[in-house]
Amino acid sequence: MKHIDYRHVELHDGFWKTKLDMVRNTTVHAVYDRFCDTHRFSALKCRWKPGDPDQPHIFWDSDVAKWLEGVAYLLAKEENKELEAIAEETIAAIIANSDENGYFNSHFLVTEQENRFKLRSHHELYCAGHLIEAAVAYYEATGRDAFLKAMCRFADYIEKIFKIEKSAAFRTPGHPELELALLRLYGCTKEPRYLELAKFFIDEHGNNDVDGRLYPQYNEYYNQDEMPLRERSTAEGHSVRSLYLLSAMADLAEETDDAELKAACERCFKNIVTRRMYITGGVGSTHMGETFTVDYHLPNRTAYAETCAAISLAMFSNRMLHLQPRGVYADTVERTLYNGILSGVSMDGRSFFYENPLEIDPKFNNVNTSTEEKERWPITQRVEVFSCSCCPPNIVRFIPSVAGMLYAYDENTVYVHQYAASSAKENGVELTVETSYPAEGTVKVQCKAPQKQLALRIPGWCRSFTLNCPYELKDGYAYIALQGESTVELTMDMPVTVMAANREVHASAGRVAVLRGPVVYCAEGVDNGEDIASVLVDPKAVYTKGESEFLLPNLHTAAYRPAETEDLYRVAGEDLELVPLKLIPYYAFANRGETEMHVWLLRKYG
Amino acid sequence: MKHIDYRHVELHDGFWKTKLDMVRNTTVHAVYDRFCDTHRFSALKCRWKPGDPDQPHIFWDSDVAKWLEGVAYLLAKEENKELEAIAEETIAAIIANSDENGYFNSHFLVTEQENRFKLRSHHELYCAGHLIEAAVAYYEATGRDAFLKAMCRFADYIEKIFKIEKSAAFRTPGHPELELALLRLYGCTKEPRYLELAKFFIDEHGNNDVDGRLYPQYNEYYNQDEMPLRERSTAEGHSVRSLYLLSAMADLAEETDDAELKAACERCFKNIVTRRMYITGGVGSTHMGETFTVDYHLPNRTAYAETCAAISLAMFSNRMLHLQPRGVYADTVERTLYNGILSGVSMDGRSFFYENPLEIDPKFNNVNTSTEEKERWPITQRVEVFSCSCCPPNIVRFIPSVAGMLYAYDENTVYVHQYAASSAKENGVELTVETSYPAEGTVKVQCKAPQKQLALRIPGWCRSFTLNCPYELKDGYAYIALQGESTVELTMDMPVTVMAANREVHASAGRVAVLRGPVVYCAEGVDNGEDIASVLVDPKAVYTKGESEFLLPNLHTAAYRPAETEDLYRVAGEDLELVPLKLIPYYAFANRGETEMHVWLLRKYG
Repeated sequence: MKHIDYRHVELHDGFWKTKLDMVRNTTVHAVYDRFCDTHRFSALKCRWKPGDPDQPHIFWDSDVAKWLEGVAYLLAKEENKELEAIAEETIAAIIANSDENGYFNSHFLVTEQENRFKLRSHHELYCAGHLIEAAVAYYEATGRDAFLKAMCRFADYIEKIFKIEKSAAFRTPGHPELELALLRLYGCTKEPRYLELAKFFIDEHGNNDVDGRLYPQYNEYYNQDEMPLRERSTAEGHSVRSLYLLSAMADLAEETDDAELKAACERCFKNIVTRRMYITGGVGSTHMGETFTVDYHLPNRTAYAETCAAISLAMFSNRMLHLQPRGVYADTVERTLYNGILSGVSMDGRSFFYENPLEIDPKFNNVNTSTEEKERWPITQRVEVFSCSCCPPNIVRFIPSVAGMLYAYDENTVYVHQYAASSAKENGVELTVETSYPAEGTVKVQCKAPQKQLALRIPGWCRSFTLNCPYELKDGYAYIALQGESTVELTMDMPVTVMAANREVHASAGRVAVLRGPVVYCAEGVDNGEDIASVLVDPKAVYTKGESEFLLPNLHTAAYRPAETEDLYRVAGEDLELVPLKLIPYYAFANRGETEMHVWLLRKYG
Repeated sequence: MKHIDYRHVELHDGFWKTKLDMVRNTTVHAVYDRFCDTHRFSALKCRWKPGDPDQPHIFWDSDVAKWLEGVAYLLAKEENKELEAIAEETIAAIIANSDENGYFNSHFLVTEQENRFKLRSHHELYCAGHLIEAAVAYYEATGRDAFLKAMCRFADYIEKIFKIEKSAAFRTPGHPELELALLRLYGCTKEPRYLELAKFFIDEHGNNDVDGRLYPQYNEYYNQDEMPLRERSTAEGHSVRSLYLLSAMADLAEETDDAELKAACERCFKNIVTRRMYITGGVGSTHMGETFTVDYHLPNRTAYAETCAAISLAMFSNRMLHLQPRGVYADTVERTLYNGILSGVSMDGRSFFYENPLEIDPKFNNVNTSTEEKERWPITQRVEVFSCSCCPPNIVRFIPSVAGMLYAYDENTVYVHQYAASSAKENGVELTVETSYPAEGTVKVQCKAPQKQLALRIPGWCRSFTLNCPYELKDGYAYIALQGESTVELTMDMPVTVMAANREVHASAGRVAVLRGPVVYCAEGVDNGEDIASVLVDPKAVYTKGESEFLLPNLHTAAYRPAETEDLYRVAGEDLELVPLKLIPYYAFANRGETEMHVWLLRKYG
């Protein structure tokens, strides 16, 4: 299966067009400005000298590279002289300062040169991977190949040091990313050495005794070395490292038809979505190591659920579709898209969350009145830049890439994985989709293609739908015969759905989450007053749609709240009072100041 | 009002007799053995020299003193040559090693002598207070006054240094305790200088600019210096420090008829019991500083609720009765007695909790699979000794002192504050109480006294009772006319009561606690299987009493649990299954190995 490239997809007015415009008009500039302020761009000029301030950090190149990748996606669709000039200047600096052997790293070029390829924890290959991704994207977007060529030289040099000479002090990237980048470079250049190098790294992970701990406090699970990757059954360790590596594994499994690797990907995917994923698609339950923890450990208030982790879960899930067209993969992409990824950026596109908790309780965030020791809680308001600012440029590159996740095809079938108003044309496949999804559930698909059938995903959240043509349902897709040109109308009922978590998820025991279609909702204090923690919803309650202040309709219902009392403890009586409850899309939380927020609301049984 | 001294109260067979026997037969010896192992007793010989191991710790004297105080209470009631010999030897060491000026501290006598009365954080006056309490108790129990005289000399020396010369480097005890000890010493000796010295310290707290921070990270709230004590309205800072000081304030208010101080005590008491107290009587919501935090912050799984804090809340509440006979004070004593204090000691009397959480969830205690960083949780099994082992000897002295909390009298009234099978005789007041309380709610009181009336507490938990005589109900007490000798029978209905917390207590939102009489119950995994966090109880459920494996009957009912599912998230359906639920008294939790435990169970509405 091949996805239709984002370059061949035009978004029409609708949800994702709005978000794409936000990135184009605001986010890409806001991130650039903050990265200039923090010397990330100037670092690429490699003029830093000992004694100067602002020593280039080991991961700064990756921040700029992701921004460049996002700019490439934007430039492919619409001319922008200003962005193009910045991109060209940035690329020129990278090329100009690359070593003769192809090596580039703005940290190791100006400081601790003796440690080049000596410190596995120092993100050298991670930065290389992002630079390669950016170079491929820039070449594919603009046709200009200088950056790509430079990064091919860099990849060649990495091959020499790590695979041929084995002269580096470690064997595999400390922070996976290069693996998937090399597969992408192979996809672009068709140079089999890059495929082989990616395979080499993937084979080496957990399979060599050279690579020790990255950091003293983190064990082999943290750095994806706990066992050979083909043996894995669970997602472990640093969640972004884990999912970038799983993305590469899925790509390699597809490319080399590696059944063992495919099976490992399937087991890990299942482990994530049935045991270790927030309902928002967020993953990584703890800030300690930013890691996966244990099955069903999904605390809401201390959820880490890094924006980059949700993005990388979308990347992995989207790649899994290439191994098998199963609705659960595209469902998971969708779950992250409308929830745990989008919550990472403010409605105005200027500020960002790194952590995406499912509960905020400001009243109990600063309880230690007697001491300066504080309990650690996720921040409650987005900020414009972080010292470790991976998430903002990941938003810049991810949102423009969503267009490339909508459609795919193989020999027999054209797939519509995600629904967005758009048109697409690639290799004889022509598609036009009219829809206001996910505001409403009606989707009109026009398809002209040589393939025999059209497959429309019926999302896992959808309990009832109609199609105006015969279809066969299989693994979350409705398969419809294609005869040249077809127009199909899919109508998905999109009532409010009230979801409960598995009883093993103690953190959400007795609570429910309200969704409409794929969109998770939440209740904020600014709308609902204090003590939302104690408000109960009846799963059978009726919801009405309210204004769409955050792109999609708000929801209103009647809920219940225990009466206000003076007593600390009282006999449990029938003292509930009806209160109006307003819910907004989760992705829009924390756009109106610090306020209590809950995704999981108490459930009133009976 | 004066409580009938424990020496004049005989416990008969029943709940507290069992606990007293446990302390006499086991706990006092177990604590002694561990304190010998850890050199706490040998330290009093003051033979430690630089270079030796086991340097006496700044708070060791207080540990031994509390043990001695407990031994005094035991010896007063029953001869025990072995304990007496240890006590005499210990007291002899203290006397022999006291300075000529009366000073004793096994740490400062052998090390850093130059820092005597220089370091407010070093528990010197705290240890002095406990030694004074022990000396008073030993004198009152045995009539031997050598220890008392030695401690009077010590108190005189403290008066000289702190009040007369003001030559110490600080003004008030860093850890309050001396204040209440001086009031007790005054009560025993009638020497007004000790009353004046207690008043001096109480007046100085928060009212002098000499005393700075005890520790860099803790502010003035931690060390009870945030404002003059008469202005206080909330309980702040280190919970044991706060409550020992409040106990002294209540004693001083009584002794000096100080209306301002009384009002401050009342405000702080109200703040605690209506905002900052667990349903078990535990206080101190965080391990950070072992402090009170903010109103309604009562997390269950991370509850600190130190055993000593519950004991000190009992001490404070019991003293408040002397200011005004209000049921809420004795109710609070009772709440701590049967729950947050007793949970501090194992059923076999050998091991102890310092922290008394209201929830244990072992499945999620060690979730950080990738890192050696761990989340901090209270320990899940009692241990025999702690490095800071204040709680075990506090149990040793507290349980034998319970007999002294039962009865009181003033000019007009004889009060029965707590119900326990026992008889008492003091100053013409004679009482015999027959009851199996709190197993059952029937209490037969025989009283012969010159007072005009008998006041029986009607506990706050009691919704329905009968008395076989006329009575007037006032402030939680039934007042009954006394004519020479009366026999009164009080029958309190003691059904299971299901309690809810104030809606501002987010940690227990949607949950209920099951009590029978004053006893809080809990559900343990060893009885109920996994995922008790997800089990729901209907407040209207019927409970049956089961075996009394832990002194009081267990409770059995039918509860509800969501069906087991593979899905992580599912539509909230009517999928509850009936499950049997066994509850045991909270004080008995963690006596059968590490297991899930919950006081607060999900409430099924409707």
